[in-house]
Amino acid sequence: MTFTEAAAAIVAAGRRLDALGLVPATAGNFSIRLDANRLAVTVSGRHKGFLTEDDVMVVDLDGRAEDPAKRSSAETLLHCGIYRRFPEAGAVLHGHSIANTVLSRAAGDTLTLAGYELLKAFPGLPTHDARVMLPVVPNDQDIPRMQRGLGMLWEGLATIPPGYLIRGHGSYVWGADMPAALMRMEALEFMLACELEERRHAR
Amino acid sequence: MTFTEAAAAIVAAGRRLDALGLVPATAGNFSIRLDANRLAVTVSGRHKGFLTEDDVMVVDLDGRAEDPAKRSSAETLLHCGIYRRFPEAGAVLHGHSIANTVLSRAAGDTLTLAGYELLKAFPGLPTHDARVMLPVVPNDQDIPRMQRGLGMLWEGLATIPPGYLIRGHGSYVWGADMPAALMRMEALEFMLACELEERRHAR
Amino acid sequence: MTFTEAAAAIVAAGRRLDALGLVPATAGNFSIRLDANRLAVTVSGRHKGFLTEDDVMVVDLDGRAEDPAKRSSAETLLHCGIYRRFPEAGAVLHGHSIANTVLSRAAGDTLTLAGYELLKAFPGLPTHDARVMLPVVPNDQDIPRMQRGLGMLWEGLATIPPGYLIRGHGSYVWGADMPAALMRMEALEFMLACELEERRHAR
Amino acid sequence: MTFTEAAAAIVAAGRRLDALGLVPATAGNFSIRLDANRLAVTVSGRHKGFLTEDDVMVVDLDGRAEDPAKRSSAETLLHCGIYRRFPEAGAVLHGHSIANTVLSRAAGDTLTLAGYELLKAFPGLPTHDARVMLPVVPNDQDIPRMQRGLGMLWEGLATIPPGYLIRGHGSYVWGADMPAALMRMEALEFMLACELEERRHAR
Repeated sequence: MTFTEAAAAIVAAGRRLDALGLVPATAGNFSIRLDANRLAVTVSGRHKGFLTEDDVMVVDLDGRAEDPAKRSSAETLLHCGIYRRFPEAGAVLHGHSIANTVLSRAAGDTLTLAGYELLKAFPGLPTHDARVMLPVVPNDQDIPRMQRGLGMLWEGLATIPPGYLIRGHGSYVWGADMPAALMRMEALEFMLACELEERRHAR
Repeated sequence: MTFTEAAAAIVAAGRRLDALGLVPATAGNFSIRLDANRLAVTVSGRHKGFLTEDDVMVVDLDGRAEDPAKRSSAETLLHCGIYRRFPEAGAVLHGHSIANTVLSRAAGDTLTLAGYELLKAFPGLPTHDARVMLPVVPNDQDIPRMQRGLGMLWEGLATIPPGYLIRGHGSYVWGADMPAALMRMEALEFMLACELEERRHAR
Repeated sequence: MTFTEAAAAIVAAGRRLDALGLVPATAGNFSIRLDANRLAVTVSGRHKGFLTEDDVMVVDLDGRAEDPAKRSSAETLLHCGIYRRFPEAGAVLHGHSIANTVLSRAAGDTLTLAGYELLKAFPGLPTHDARVMLPVVPNDQDIPRMQRGLGMLWEGLATIPPGYLIRGHGSYVWGADMPAALMRMEALEFMLACELEERRHAR
Repeated sequence: MTFTEAAAAIVAAGRRLDALGLVPATAGNFSIRLDANRLAVTVSGRHKGFLTEDDVMVVDLDGRAEDPAKRSSAETLLHCGIYRRFPEAGAVLHGHSIANTVLSRAAGDTLTLAGYELLKAFPGLPTHDARVMLPVVPNDQDIPRMQRGLGMLWEGLATIPPGYLIRGHGSYVWGADMPAALMRMEALEFMLACELEERRHAR
C-alpha cells in the first residue's frame, strides 16, 4: 500500500468515526502499516473528522518520524506496540466514546462481554456463546510505560482479546486492514453501548 | 421485480438502516422475493451501510445459491422461513439496535408493546388500543434448528406478530415490499427504544 | 402562499424532522394555511422523511379534500381545529419523539416545563423564569371527539400553551409560518428530552 | 480577518453545532474578534444551523451595532465580557446541550471534571490527572448584571476555567480562533455527556 492510499483510508476512517461520534475534539488516532518497518499515522492535535493527506505522516516501528518537521500523535508508541506484537495487524484505531469512557472509569482490570451475536465480529469466535474479557489499563501520560504494561499483560494471556480500553481515555482495536479495523471498532462500541444500558437496568 | 431492481432496493435499505444505527459492523441481512422460488439476499460478512450490487446474490427458498462462488448470510434460512410461511411477505429485514439487544437479553419468551399510536403501523391493527406480544427466541448458531422452533411457535399462535427478536441478536420484520418492511422496522425500533426508556423509569 | 410553495415547505420540514428522529415509520403530519378556508396537508400513510409534492393535498377547514382521489391524514381535523381556534397559526406540525411518547404515557393531565432558557422560544414569554403547563390528552381514534375535548380544554385556560401532547402519540405545535413552527417543535422537544433525563435523576 | 471570512466561519460553525445537536430552535450565539475593538456576532433570533452572511453583524466591545438596523443576540455582552477579559480569545461559542442543561439545573456553584483524557484539550493542562472546576452561574435576563457577576467570579480565581455554564441555559467557551473554540466545545460537551451518564450510575 502506498502512502497516498493509506492516507486516503485514514482520512475516510476519520470522517466515518466522526459521524459515529467517536472522535470528539482532538480525540482519536489512526494508523496503517505500510511495510515491515513503517506505518502511516495521524499528526498530533488535529480534529479527526476533518483530516487531509497533510495530517498523515510516516514513522518507523520505534515511532521516529521520517519528516522531522511533523509530530505524530503522543500515543504513536501504542500503535507501534500493536504492530510489533501482532504481525497480522494492518491497521489500528483509537477512539473515545461516551460508553467506553464511562465504563472504563467504573471498571476494574477487565470488562466482560458475553452472549452478544456481534462477538462473532471478533477474530476466532465462531459463536455468540463466548466470553471476551477486555483489559482496562490505567491512563498514563508516560506512553512507553503504558506500552510496557500492555506487553506484560499480553504475555500472561492464553488468548489475546480484540482490543483494550484505557481508563477515561477510550479504546484501541486493530485489524488486517482499515475496513476490518473499522468493523471491529463498530462491533466493540455497539456492545459497550449495550453494556452501559444494561448496567443501568441491573442496578 | 428484476434482480437489479431488488439489489438497488437492498443497497438503499442498507444506507438507511446504517444512518439509523441499526447495522453496526457486519450486523444485519436483507432480502427481497424475486418470484415464486427465488430471493435476492445479502452476501455474508459485508458492512450493510456500504453495499454494492455485487454484495447481493440469488438463492432459492431452500437457501441454495445460484452462483456457487458466493456465500449468502448465515441466516438466509430465516429469510426463507418467512417467505415460505407468509405468502404476502415480499421483503425481509434483520437489524441490531441497542434497544432490541438489551431488551431481548432481559426478556422472557415475549415482549409486550401496548398503547402506542405506532402500533397502527403493524398490519391488522386499526387502533393504538391493542397489545402486540413479540416472540423472543433464544440465539442459536444452528439456523435450521432456530427456524424449526419459529415454525412451531407460529403454528401455536392465533395471530402472527409482525416480527420477532432473537436474544442478544436483533430483530426480524417483513412487509409486502421493501418500503413496507422499512416502515415496520422503524415503527418496531421506535417502540422498543421507548420501552427501554420506560423500563428505566419503572424500576 | 401558493400550493407549490406550501408543498415545498412541507417536504423540507419532513426531511428536517426525519433527520431529528421525530417522524419514524408513518408517524407525523404537517400542514400550512393557504387562505381563509384552505390548507395544504400531508397525504395519509407516507413516510414524512421522503415526501414529494404529490404527497401533499388541499383540504378545507372542515377537512374535506379538494381532490376526492386523495386521502389526508387521519388527524387532519386536529390541524383544522388549530387553524379555526388560532387565527395567527399559519403552520401546524405533529411528530413522535421517544421523549414525548414516554413522558406522555407517564404523565397526568399536564406536563410542566419551568426554568429553561428555551421557554423564550415560546410566544409571549420574555423570560426563562416562567412555567408552561402542556396539556396531555388521552389518545383516541375518534378524532372529532378528541378535537371537541381540546376545544373545551382551550376554553377553560387563561393563556393558551404553545402545543399539546397526546398520550403515547406525540406532540402538536403551531406557528405563524413553517420556520416558526419548526423552531417551536425543536424547542419543545429539546426541553422534553431534558425532562426525560431529569426525571431519571430525580427518582 | 475580514468580516466576510469571519461570517463564513460563523456560518460553518452553526452547521457543525446543529449537526451535533447543540443549537436547537433559536439557541446559541457565536462571535469572532475582528480587531482591537470590533467583533462579528450572530443576529438575534435566527436558527444557528441555517445562517447566511446576512445573519452576522458587527458590534464594538460595548455591544453597540455598526448597522443600527440589525439587532445582535441578547447575550452579546457576554461575548464582549470574554474578549475584554481574555486578550487571547479570538472566538466565542454558546450552545445548549441536553447534558449541560440537565447538569447545570442540578448543580451547585461548580461542576467538577476530573480524570478525563480530553481535559488535555483545555489550555494549560498537559495531563488527564487534573481537576477542572467549571463555574455554574444563575440564569438572568439582565445580561449586564450577569456579566458583572462573571467578572467578579473570574477575579477571585487563581486559574481561569475554559468555560462556564449558565443554569438551564447552556455553556460558553472560547479559543484563539474558531477551530480552537469548536474543539473546546466538543471536548467540554463530551465530558458533560459522560458525567450525565456517570451520575445515573452513581445514584
